[in-house]
Amino acid sequence: MSSQPPHPALLIPGPIEFDDAVLQSMSHYSESHVGPGFVATFGETLTQLRQLFQSTDPAAQPFIISGSGTLGWDLVAANLVEAGESALVLSTGYFGDGFADCLRTYGADVTKIDGPVGGRPSLEEVEAALSKKKYKILTVTHVDTSTGVLSELKNLTATVKRVSPETLVIVDGVCSVACEEIAFDSWGLDGVVTASQKAIGCPAGLSISFFSAKAIEAFNSRKTPPASYFASFKNWAPIMRNYEAKKPSYFATPSPQLIHALNTALSQILTRPLAERFQKHAEVSDRVKKAVKDLGLEVVATKPEDQAHAMTAIYLPENVTIPDILPKLSTKGVIFAGGIHKAIATKYIRFGHMGVSALDPNRKDIDLALDALRSGLSECGYQKA
Amino acid sequence: MSSQPPHPALLIPGPIEFDDAVLQSMSHYSESHVGPGFVATFGETLTQLRQLFQSTDPAAQPFIISGSGTLGWDLVAANLVEAGESALVLSTGYFGDGFADCLRTYGADVTKIDGPVGGRPSLEEVEAALSKKKYKILTVTHVDTSTGVLSELKNLTATVKRVSPETLVIVDGVCSVACEEIAFDSWGLDGVVTASQKAIGCPAGLSISFFSAKAIEAFNSRKTPPASYFASFKNWAPIMRNYEAKKPSYFATPSPQLIHALNTALSQILTRPLAERFQKHAEVSDRVKKAVKDLGLEVVATKPEDQAHAMTAIYLPENVTIPDILPKLSTKGVIFAGGIHKAIATKYIRFGHMGVSALDPNRKDIDLALDALRSGLSECGYQKA
Repeated sequence: MSSQPPHPALLIPGPIEFDDAVLQSMSHYSESHVGPGFVATFGETLTQLRQLFQSTDPAAQPFIISGSGTLGWDLVAANLVEAGESALVLSTGYFGDGFADCLRTYGADVTKIDGPVGGRPSLEEVEAALSKKKYKILTVTHVDTSTGVLSELKNLTATVKRVSPETLVIVDGVCSVACEEIAFDSWGLDGVVTASQKAIGCPAGLSISFFSAKAIEAFNSRKTPPASYFASFKNWAPIMRNYEAKKPSYFATPSPQLIHALNTALSQILTRPLAERFQKHAEVSDRVKKAVKDLGLEVVATKPEDQAHAMTAIYLPENVTIPDILPKLSTKGVIFAGGIHKAIATKYIRFGHMGVSALDPNRKDIDLALDALRSGLSECGYQKA
Repeated sequence: MSSQPPHPALLIPGPIEFDDAVLQSMSHYSESHVGPGFVATFGETLTQLRQLFQSTDPAAQPFIISGSGTLGWDLVAANLVEAGESALVLSTGYFGDGFADCLRTYGADVTKIDGPVGGRPSLEEVEAALSKKKYKILTVTHVDTSTGVLSELKNLTATVKRVSPETLVIVDGVCSVACEEIAFDSWGLDGVVTASQKAIGCPAGLSISFFSAKAIEAFNSRKTPPASYFASFKNWAPIMRNYEAKKPSYFATPSPQLIHALNTALSQILTRPLAERFQKHAEVSDRVKKAVKDLGLEVVATKPEDQAHAMTAIYLPENVTIPDILPKLSTKGVIFAGGIHKAIATKYIRFGHMGVSALDPNRKDIDLALDALRSGLSECGYQKA
């Protein structure tokens, strides 16, 4: 029995439903941010991130900082690019465009390659761009939460290393970490930025990131100081190293309660093999995509290989609007999200199926959601053609 | 009876001990950050800040953003000062110096006036500086958590308005909001930045700030775009206005759990007159300062009028070190903090007496702390001369 009061199943692509033990950790009694108990918890949590990212390089650097996932973009833009340096942004939706805006704010010279709506830029386009100009970094949104488009990282990174080996490969993993495979070391990634409230399954409020030794070296070789204070590697990296070494350290006060909750969430995740977790998300995703197809509807991510496994963006039938369907789902105890990709925002809804909703056999969230979608559409007058 | 497990009384100058109801709000079940329930809570919480700051100007703007208190400095530096513009920083310790560093990071031309250790810059020094040069902003740390030095704001602001009326007056209120009087409108302040985990009594993880119509106009008149993405007024102000108008809005995902906890904390604070709250903190402070004096010890803040009411920095007797006394206090169930002002760091300890520890008659934290301090010092071999 859950210790949470009855409430609608939150099945948007983040924040997600949380495990009872994670929510209970949010109520941890107050501790000093530099006391031995909390320092041990924070240090252990940083080390857990190495496992989550399948990294064994001690020179790679995890960061956990109070903030939204968006703060990860500032970390990249303020530390890894200097004003006037070039960034190649691969965009598969709203969040790719946002990363580009953030990079421009800090003076980066941004070239953006947009995938078609529901698709991603091709490797050929990326290779052509990298051959034409020298880029300090390339950014890619692993799963764009606006579209559910999954980017392929392994061949992409191999291509960057072949064509432009000095370019740093930075991944926005907000909607992919802990639900999609990320082999940080073996693929040769240089950075992943993410947030607590999606597949990691911890309430919102933490920016979580992981950078390679090469990224840290690039930071150390800057000619100009970092362009942010709160998002500065210079201010935070020594603090993270100290915490991980179980030594008290201070730059800005972390949130002990959120970090306890993250520790609980990561401990649960790391109890089982990560491959099993990714496989289970894929199985649930297959089931959702099949149900959508059986309803005669289309997924925004056009090709199966471009489809994320922890969310599905679904085109509504003609004559059914978001203000028609979302309240009907809500009445049935299910919360989905509306669209946010500007080209198609009013035409689709988003269904997040990650974390406990996908993995906990005691929960019936996915069945509930699919049933609600079928009956809700029917009440809206939709019948499969 | 508290629902929290037994634990040492956390009496550092933040994070502080939390009320049970506030901690329980941290475990709120998951809600959509754009759903009507949470939007109403967030909107109400923003409006509560207007009451907390005693402001009735609808054009003043509250912000609640995931982050540490330090993020408030970036908000000021990235939005209210453009590169090359001048900032006058009044420093009364570690945190005044940090604000200056943050402003420099964003290109401000910083002049810093340092108070003597344990004191603050005089009004005459401030007036002389303002007469010599045009400053876009003046910053002052209301209570410097490193020293417990309280700055006076009313006459300071009046002086700025007389000598340099266009200069914005910005207050670092991290260790003063909800325990020291702040009459935002009537004193004519332009900004206060604070954090959740001190006298407001909500766990760490929220940057809370409040800016005058004049500050917002200064932002709107910038010649260059804001110098941060995550800390940008441009990105956040419309979101805050929408939430307060109970309309869903998105820039970056807020933390519903932390905002529920903040709502609970502010609801408790605003149930009683603020003047009563400030008075009670002053009474507890007087009792602590008297006990320190009775022990034959000195407070770091030299003059009574410069002493904060929610914390006391206490010089240790000669021959008693921080590694001697803090573990003894801990054994007695009391956590104090060590010193962090670089000139005197090893010579003093810090005692936070704010929020429930100062106000809840069912708690005996202050008695426990004073008893522990007396017996701990005695065990260290200290006897009053």
